[in-house]
Amino acid sequence: MKRTYLDNGATSYPKAPGMAAEIARYIEEDCININRTDSNVAMKNFDFLFSLRTDLAKLFNYPHPECVIFRSGLTESMNWIIKGLIRQDDHVVVTSLEHNAVMRPLVQQKIAFSRIPCNEFGYCSASDAEKLIRPDTVAMIINAASNVFGGIQDLESLAEVAKRHNLMFIVDSAQATPYVNIDMEKLHAAAICFAGHKGLLGPQGTGGFIIRKELASSLVPLVAGGTGSKSDSEEIPQMLPDKFSPGTENLPGLKGLSWSVSYVLKNLDSLRESCRKNTELLYNKLKDIKGIRIVGPTLDMSRSSVISITTESMDIAALAAALAEKGIETRVGMHCAPAAHKAMGTFPGGTLRLSPGPFTSSDEIEFATAEIKRIISL
Amino acid sequence: MKRTYLDNGATSYPKAPGMAAEIARYIEEDCININRTDSNVAMKNFDFLFSLRTDLAKLFNYPHPECVIFRSGLTESMNWIIKGLIRQDDHVVVTSLEHNAVMRPLVQQKIAFSRIPCNEFGYCSASDAEKLIRPDTVAMIINAASNVFGGIQDLESLAEVAKRHNLMFIVDSAQATPYVNIDMEKLHAAAICFAGHKGLLGPQGTGGFIIRKELASSLVPLVAGGTGSKSDSEEIPQMLPDKFSPGTENLPGLKGLSWSVSYVLKNLDSLRESCRKNTELLYNKLKDIKGIRIVGPTLDMSRSSVISITTESMDIAALAAALAEKGIETRVGMHCAPAAHKAMGTFPGGTLRLSPGPFTSSDEIEFATAEIKRIISL
Repeated sequence: MKRTYLDNGATSYPKAPGMAAEIARYIEEDCININRTDSNVAMKNFDFLFSLRTDLAKLFNYPHPECVIFRSGLTESMNWIIKGLIRQDDHVVVTSLEHNAVMRPLVQQKIAFSRIPCNEFGYCSASDAEKLIRPDTVAMIINAASNVFGGIQDLESLAEVAKRHNLMFIVDSAQATPYVNIDMEKLHAAAICFAGHKGLLGPQGTGGFIIRKELASSLVPLVAGGTGSKSDSEEIPQMLPDKFSPGTENLPGLKGLSWSVSYVLKNLDSLRESCRKNTELLYNKLKDIKGIRIVGPTLDMSRSSVISITTESMDIAALAAALAEKGIETRVGMHCAPAAHKAMGTFPGGTLRLSPGPFTSSDEIEFATAEIKRIISL
Repeated sequence: MKRTYLDNGATSYPKAPGMAAEIARYIEEDCININRTDSNVAMKNFDFLFSLRTDLAKLFNYPHPECVIFRSGLTESMNWIIKGLIRQDDHVVVTSLEHNAVMRPLVQQKIAFSRIPCNEFGYCSASDAEKLIRPDTVAMIINAASNVFGGIQDLESLAEVAKRHNLMFIVDSAQATPYVNIDMEKLHAAAICFAGHKGLLGPQGTGGFIIRKELASSLVPLVAGGTGSKSDSEEIPQMLPDKFSPGTENLPGLKGLSWSVSYVLKNLDSLRESCRKNTELLYNKLKDIKGIRIVGPTLDMSRSSVISITTESMDIAALAAALAEKGIETRVGMHCAPAAHKAMGTFPGGTLRLSPGPFTSSDEIEFATAEIKRIISL
């Protein structure tokens, strides 16, 4: 059955054209372990990793590529940042729409937190954030774009509050990159965590974080191990990126990410425009279906391409299953963000989320929305 | 230039035939996020992950596939085990040949340890291990096969001591799997950490651990995040494998690992025989070169295919560089295991390591050893 993929919020598909072939080529021809093997092939691969760091540093506007650290994804990266920079007796301010990649580590570490309330569209205000700051507050962690409802927060105003109160400003950019400009310097961010396999169109298993250089010395590595450097010592080396790069890197994945980031940087305007058009079409089609409620920002607000819906006429899980039978792939439930649903009044029922990507065609959106209309009117 | 790859100890190359194409096929056709998207494709991918768990559980002889946990590699896995099971006031016994994947987390956590001395060939005895056990000793961590010298430890006798003293027996199987049988049940192991990209012929970025079911409830996850399960809660779910599977899995990598593990299980005897023959040829050729000293086990001892050499006639780094100019890829230095060199008297000079794989040809070994002979006689 032909796939009609509308779950780019979970992982993007299709990926950057040519990426899969590039990974296969690496495995067949260039496979090697950098910082280990004495080989010209190893040098070549070392170079690509440096270029990828440079590209990402440019994307997030930070002049220190060695501060770009690759981990297995955003979740692991956020754990490195939270567990490495925040202590148990600290307090943090988070939005009320955080993903469990943020909330579960905070709860696990018993770190006190306060949630910035949001309005009916899912936006948090800087003034509300400021009211929550206590003497023991050390950080503000902000979900740049909600993975459930799509609202893009006003990062600059929130960051301004964080800076004024000398808080570390930490960004979960999973759903925002590369569609939202997230400027490390302008935001004076302490760290930005990113996923490689969503908007960056890279493979699953990739992602990472950018850490502000001044904080790198105080960040305790969550994982320690061999780095192929300072190998005469059982202590973790202090230089970057080695300090945060223990063990063998996911080089096939990073080859893919490198390919896809190059593609994204080259085509950023057209990818953004395509996503905007797809979001507009999907939003308008959904709005016209009787019995469907769109939860979250309207089309004229600052939003990403994920759109969450509910319906009173049938169970949304049954709706998702009926769509899946037609090859239409969506996601239903909590989307790993129970807080977001509590904040927006969709807990515990959840929502059905549709998220087109830059390669989604208007035909696919027409087909999916026609099916939703047909199924809920049965 | 044609590659003559002799660094399978760092990562195996070539990989299992067909694996690269399978990863590319997954990315092009089946890419999806399991436990998230409502889709038949997602179900199919969920099934492959279960099969892979079953295959690995069979390889390590453990009847609970849900206890097979995928992480980004052995290093991350060992950090999960050490940081999740051992406390700062505990004491552990390790071999004197441990890799920094074990030593750096122990040092980082300030966990007290004692090293089992080894004999001139790199073997540790159970009786020496037993002498180091103290009232506060909670675990024995054993490098099954040295990544530097190739000696395979007598796991059963060491495990017997650990069991008698009620210690957790933890195995670093990076260089041993699948060439050494590591039997979770027979060893009564607490955990076995494995690399996906070495003997299992899978891609870099894969690996994991098997945790004894009784210990799973006390193992604190190093990383917390969304699992696509129990998503109404900000607490980490307790069921396996979810408790230890936060964030998006490296599905392209695991597709590759699944392919390669199937291949390895089907061809285990011939792969082992090929490695044995390559090791024999390489060892004998090196032995005959004047000025070369092989450090580690002799050919008739229990050993893997990594062979470390030193030479007094020239600097080994210069030798490795001269080999690299001919496309012969080896590794020189500490191999992320300074302790092993101290134990074997090759610190701080290190060794030049050659590690053929099952696909290395005898011609390649002849070529590489002839070049070594030629270069050191210049």
